Amino acid sequence: MATLIKNAHILTMDDQLTEYECGFLLIEDSQIKMIGEMSKLAVDSESMEVVDAKGGLLLPGFINLHTHLGMIPFRSLGDDTPDRLRRFLFPLEQVMTPELVAASSEYAMAELMLSGTTTFSDMYYFEDVVAKSCEKMKMRGFVGQTIIDMTTCDYRTAAEAIEGCREFINGWQNHELVTPMIAPHATNTNRVEDFKSIVALSLETGAPIMMHVSEMDYELTEIKEAYGFSPVEFLNELGFLDCHLIMAHGILLSDSEIELLSNARGLVSVAHCIGANTKSAKGVAPIKSLLEKGVCVGLGTDGPSSGNTLDMFTQMRMMANFQKTHLRDRSAFPAKEIVKLATYGGAKALGLDGKIGSLEVGKQADITLIETNSVNMFPIFDSYSAIVYSANASNVESTWINGVQVVSNHELVEQNLKTLREGLDSCMVEFREEVSKINKTEADI
Amino acid sequence: MATLIKNAHILTMDDQLTEYECGFLLIEDSQIKMIGEMSKLAVDSESMEVVDAKGGLLLPGFINLHTHLGMIPFRSLGDDTPDRLRRFLFPLEQVMTPELVAASSEYAMAELMLSGTTTFSDMYYFEDVVAKSCEKMKMRGFVGQTIIDMTTCDYRTAAEAIEGCREFINGWQNHELVTPMIAPHATNTNRVEDFKSIVALSLETGAPIMMHVSEMDYELTEIKEAYGFSPVEFLNELGFLDCHLIMAHGILLSDSEIELLSNARGLVSVAHCIGANTKSAKGVAPIKSLLEKGVCVGLGTDGPSSGNTLDMFTQMRMMANFQKTHLRDRSAFPAKEIVKLATYGGAKALGLDGKIGSLEVGKQADITLIETNSVNMFPIFDSYSAIVYSANASNVESTWINGVQVVSNHELVEQNLKTLREGLDSCMVEFREEVSKINKTEADI
Repeated sequence: MATLIKNAHILTMDDQLTEYECGFLLIEDSQIKMIGEMSKLAVDSESMEVVDAKGGLLLPGFINLHTHLGMIPFRSLGDDTPDRLRRFLFPLEQVMTPELVAASSEYAMAELMLSGTTTFSDMYYFEDVVAKSCEKMKMRGFVGQTIIDMTTCDYRTAAEAIEGCREFINGWQNHELVTPMIAPHATNTNRVEDFKSIVALSLETGAPIMMHVSEMDYELTEIKEAYGFSPVEFLNELGFLDCHLIMAHGILLSDSEIELLSNARGLVSVAHCIGANTKSAKGVAPIKSLLEKGVCVGLGTDGPSSGNTLDMFTQMRMMANFQKTHLRDRSAFPAKEIVKLATYGGAKALGLDGKIGSLEVGKQADITLIETNSVNMFPIFDSYSAIVYSANASNVESTWINGVQVVSNHELVEQNLKTLREGLDSCMVEFREEVSKINKTEADI
Repeated sequence: MATLIKNAHILTMDDQLTEYECGFLLIEDSQIKMIGEMSKLAVDSESMEVVDAKGGLLLPGFINLHTHLGMIPFRSLGDDTPDRLRRFLFPLEQVMTPELVAASSEYAMAELMLSGTTTFSDMYYFEDVVAKSCEKMKMRGFVGQTIIDMTTCDYRTAAEAIEGCREFINGWQNHELVTPMIAPHATNTNRVEDFKSIVALSLETGAPIMMHVSEMDYELTEIKEAYGFSPVEFLNELGFLDCHLIMAHGILLSDSEIELLSNARGLVSVAHCIGANTKSAKGVAPIKSLLEKGVCVGLGTDGPSSGNTLDMFTQMRMMANFQKTHLRDRSAFPAKEIVKLATYGGAKALGLDGKIGSLEVGKQADITLIETNSVNMFPIFDSYSAIVYSANASNVESTWINGVQVVSNHELVEQNLKTLREGLDSCMVEFREEVSKINKTEADI
């Protein structure tokens, strides 16, 4: 089966940032077969599906480098509350079930696809069901099983979680869409012996590690007091920098930590989650310094509890404004650099830059089409500016993942959003009861 | 003609923040006639237009307290460029015509309505045509004629602009939808004698003044060097604080300036334009201090050249994240406070809080309905959180201004967006030629 997308303004996001003002792209099976200007189009499209982009912007699908898809039930709950982690998140996570995580993740994948994201990198509980949801939804996912030194909804101990994670990795190795990951919760929420097992498991299996790093001020204090190290020094001592490591947040990194990261032997990256980081008043990560030192950076939304929405448009616009203000330089991080981080940057962090992250012949067809007919999308003097500063999630018209069109005309192709929502809602009965209990306690405070 | 809106979750934004979980609202002529819980609904709706809100969020229309509607042609042009004001804006503004300003303003009003904004406060050139556009579009507007000490596209000198402004005010006094304003460009771009004439004109006619204040670092230096004052001290000396004054931006205000503002005899407010302020790396205005001192604050998008989009959702979310981060307090500016500033705050700044800004019986029916069926709007534990952190402009389903439904089912009711866009595009020929010339010069730099 072949699909011909025509009349698109194509932003390839390749190394030269090649653009085709009025271009075509041919998908065959799961891959990009041809790409070029319409004037050079010479294929017989009779047996193909033809999609007229009508001048819309065609670019690689966005890569959401850090999220918690299971947390849709938490959206709009306890925002603006101090210490929400302990007052809302940890208590409510005790009632999470595999069914609720599956329903939440599928709903979340719908939100990702509808906003042009084609790959996500997740960490949460019951990740085996998240991997299965990827198959059902036809979504590309890096799926990280959480390991934390406390009893959770899925494992009694961290040691059990590590063993479970080993099985999980074995079950999903070399899958076309799913990559299993190990997700130790944070630098300060696991024991040294468990961290060592995690590093060994990653080096043995090649499974990437995703972890919250340098996010909380008290994280720095705790690690310093317990081990005399900064978080990245600690990770380095434990061997994490020899692994494929995705560090979520990296807000409070010092120059010497950035230096350590730049010398890492493994593929080490930072998932910049500017929306969540600033909504919780944690600060602005030193992305310019990281990039100058050659550390790989992608963008993430964080979970719907912290970042609220899963679309990358909000993150791109927030990143521009926050980084410019932080650096006191309106020309810092021009729009095209930000779009590059949201696509190719994420692919590189995942070790998939040879396979996705740009529109080039031979790459997998992970593609988003942004329409330019809506009121906010006129005029366009600079396509990257239009994406970062003008567009929102609702401007995404079509999305392809691995060659399969999953969104067409702003709607899911194979799935039904209303059904997914009703399914999720029906799994939320116990969760809502717990919320009522917490809200009563909160009202008494 | 009466309209009954039923099955809405109503956020009245009145002083008690009264909510109706499943409520109705009755519009008769241009006003809100009844409001309450559906269970108390007892009217014969046979002769009425009935709108089923299907559980959507009904609240007062947003008030965009500072914008430049004539600048749609500049959108996505020269973003991320240092000194864009002199390299792009001033040269291109020389080719603005009344036709282009009218077409741009009508297109901009469409964007405002489609994103739930019912009142704007504008400053630009040829404002007589903007006022006429309000009549055509049925939009409520505060329309400010720019006065600046240079030859512009509409007046040769500031003195001529002041005379033109007097005529403009006389022509639009006591209009149902339009309020004419005097808009001196900034504290450092007019001469003292002209400022004095402007204060006199405002006090004589009651016309509000809108001005860029405390926005640029060089503005502070220039005023200090020329007069020995800070910008607000300067305005106070000139009598501006005895007028109805809307100060756009107010980023660099000192504590003593805030003290002066809190003691102003006139109705003095700050239009907080966080998106534009931070995209240009200018900083974060001290809104908490202003509010603590009783200074009135509303939100604005700034023009589509600086803020790119005209919707208030982006501003609300940006405000939350920037103010929390600036204050290092995740509980600062909870969502309900921000929604209040975006509605009632703007109304108060315009002196219209007795007429619009909340949903109460006897007020004008300026209303927005936000649907909650889209993927990003589930679940909703807190309606204000959902508006600030989850919603985007495309979630606006319906808008009423002065009792007239101007948006229904996400589309303009009486106008056609495609026609407005084609009209604007056809007025942009000379503008685009000038852009090409500037881009050529820029390429040589």
